[in-house]
Amino acid sequence: MKELKIAEEIRKTAGNPGKGVHVGIGDDCAVLTYDRRKYLLWAADMLIEDVHFNVKSAGYERIGRKAVAVNISDVAAMGGVPKYITVSIGIPPARRVASIVKTVYKGINKVCREYGVKIVGGDTNRSEKLVIDVSIIGFVTKKQLVTRAGAKEGDLVLITGPVRDGKKAHLDFDPRVKESGSLVRDYRIHSMIDVSDGIAPDLGRICDRSGVGAVVSADSVPLSRGLSLKDALYYGESFELLFTMSTSGAKRLLKDNAFRREGCKYFVIGEVTQKKDGLRLMDEKGVETALKMRGFEHL
Amino acid sequence: MKELKIAEEIRKTAGNPGKGVHVGIGDDCAVLTYDRRKYLLWAADMLIEDVHFNVKSAGYERIGRKAVAVNISDVAAMGGVPKYITVSIGIPPARRVASIVKTVYKGINKVCREYGVKIVGGDTNRSEKLVIDVSIIGFVTKKQLVTRAGAKEGDLVLITGPVRDGKKAHLDFDPRVKESGSLVRDYRIHSMIDVSDGIAPDLGRICDRSGVGAVVSADSVPLSRGLSLKDALYYGESFELLFTMSTSGAKRLLKDNAFRREGCKYFVIGEVTQKKDGLRLMDEKGVETALKMRGFEHL
Repeated sequence: MKELKIAEEIRKTAGNPGKGVHVGIGDDCAVLTYDRRKYLLWAADMLIEDVHFNVKSAGYERIGRKAVAVNISDVAAMGGVPKYITVSIGIPPARRVASIVKTVYKGINKVCREYGVKIVGGDTNRSEKLVIDVSIIGFVTKKQLVTRAGAKEGDLVLITGPVRDGKKAHLDFDPRVKESGSLVRDYRIHSMIDVSDGIAPDLGRICDRSGVGAVVSADSVPLSRGLSLKDALYYGESFELLFTMSTSGAKRLLKDNAFRREGCKYFVIGEVTQKKDGLRLMDEKGVETALKMRGFEHL
Repeated sequence: MKELKIAEEIRKTAGNPGKGVHVGIGDDCAVLTYDRRKYLLWAADMLIEDVHFNVKSAGYERIGRKAVAVNISDVAAMGGVPKYITVSIGIPPARRVASIVKTVYKGINKVCREYGVKIVGGDTNRSEKLVIDVSIIGFVTKKQLVTRAGAKEGDLVLITGPVRDGKKAHLDFDPRVKESGSLVRDYRIHSMIDVSDGIAPDLGRICDRSGVGAVVSADSVPLSRGLSLKDALYYGESFELLFTMSTSGAKRLLKDNAFRREGCKYFVIGEVTQKKDGLRLMDEKGVETALKMRGFEHL
């Protein structure tokens, strides 16, 4: 069963969350009312040993870093600034608990300092496998909020960098907070998501929530060393930002030297189309084929 | 290594959380600034198969219920009203995922409706053992906030009910939101905690955070059927509220028929003393012995 279907099922049975909730289940973060100028963003992501990481090859410090980084990325994907986390950890009883907690928190503290995030709570338990669930709160200026639901027909589809080899990069990626901040400050971004499951499934999520279709242009997808187009479309855990904006906005971004000077990148990889066209890939010869939503699924 | 020591270690390395945080690591919830009248309360609690529950004897619906109830209890322990949750679940791949998610959410939705809580986000993963981490947001009127840190020498120590047999009751307990609401509305409660690890360790936490000692009077501890005094002191997962208030406040509570009419109970079980006296138990003959902090530890 796909995450998408499960989320849909949960949304249906959960019912209407009420007026304090601007965006509920089905986006990178829940969006709650906060004050006149800002919304509160709230997300939680769980990492599980041997599903999201291997302890031996990753090491505890990088696992701690990743557990926080995936949550920071969720806040960036909504145009927000990450602020506070709580950390729940389950640790196998046979292992050296105190030393593991210390090392996991070394990674957590480092990435928190790097992104100005503060730890405000936690819960430590026994568990057969190592489990870390981080919950994050961030804030976004109301008019800078970007959801998955705003893509418009005719928008261009952009990505902040080549999809990396998730198997190698997934522990050490840098959440695109700087890129997100520049984009939502200076441009009107219509929709955005962080690439956790691959370009195809994640663009599919934008299409699904926005009620549009999209076509990805094969020769414009940036490829990192050693990756094929198929890898780029379906490799997860890259955490680049995938977003859509008007053609005129994208043209202005093209000339934006300040954006590049800050070390930010972007690549135009496709276009938003009508819903009935679905999600498609256009090859070098202009031939279009349907793209499957299937990607790196955690379930 | 005890949870208390780990929390202390984490607090030290995490550093000062800054001015947006009224209470950070080390209480039932983190307390964040919200508006002029209210604080935002935020907690996360993780439940793990074969540590906190057994799937076969509990059933998925009750596990879902418990995962939310322990978090509601955290908000009640600060005098607040629970409002929103996010739910992260890890499910063993060999099992029938869709049907499990549905049944777990049946329990989640039921307890949410009962307490007026809304689900606003979630994350579903594979996992070797079933894991559920719920994160909760609630709100508390500023002057009704109660922490673990306000107990004063001379306070009486009270509890909202007999500690139940955690082995049996831990799945079906009712978080004491009603009791908490009445107490913080009509009385000045100096400190409060929900009994998750037993009277002794949890009263120890209040003492630790408040810089006081306490003596529990053996013959005034309410015992539920079949439990010994030792069970009541060290059985966890009961989730009654343990709190301290002035003697005059407690006298007023004693005559409060409205409180009882609402079905709320309380029992005076001890007194707050000087820090140097530590945590002690006074037996029927008035002889005092030291109480150990050791309880039902999840680590």
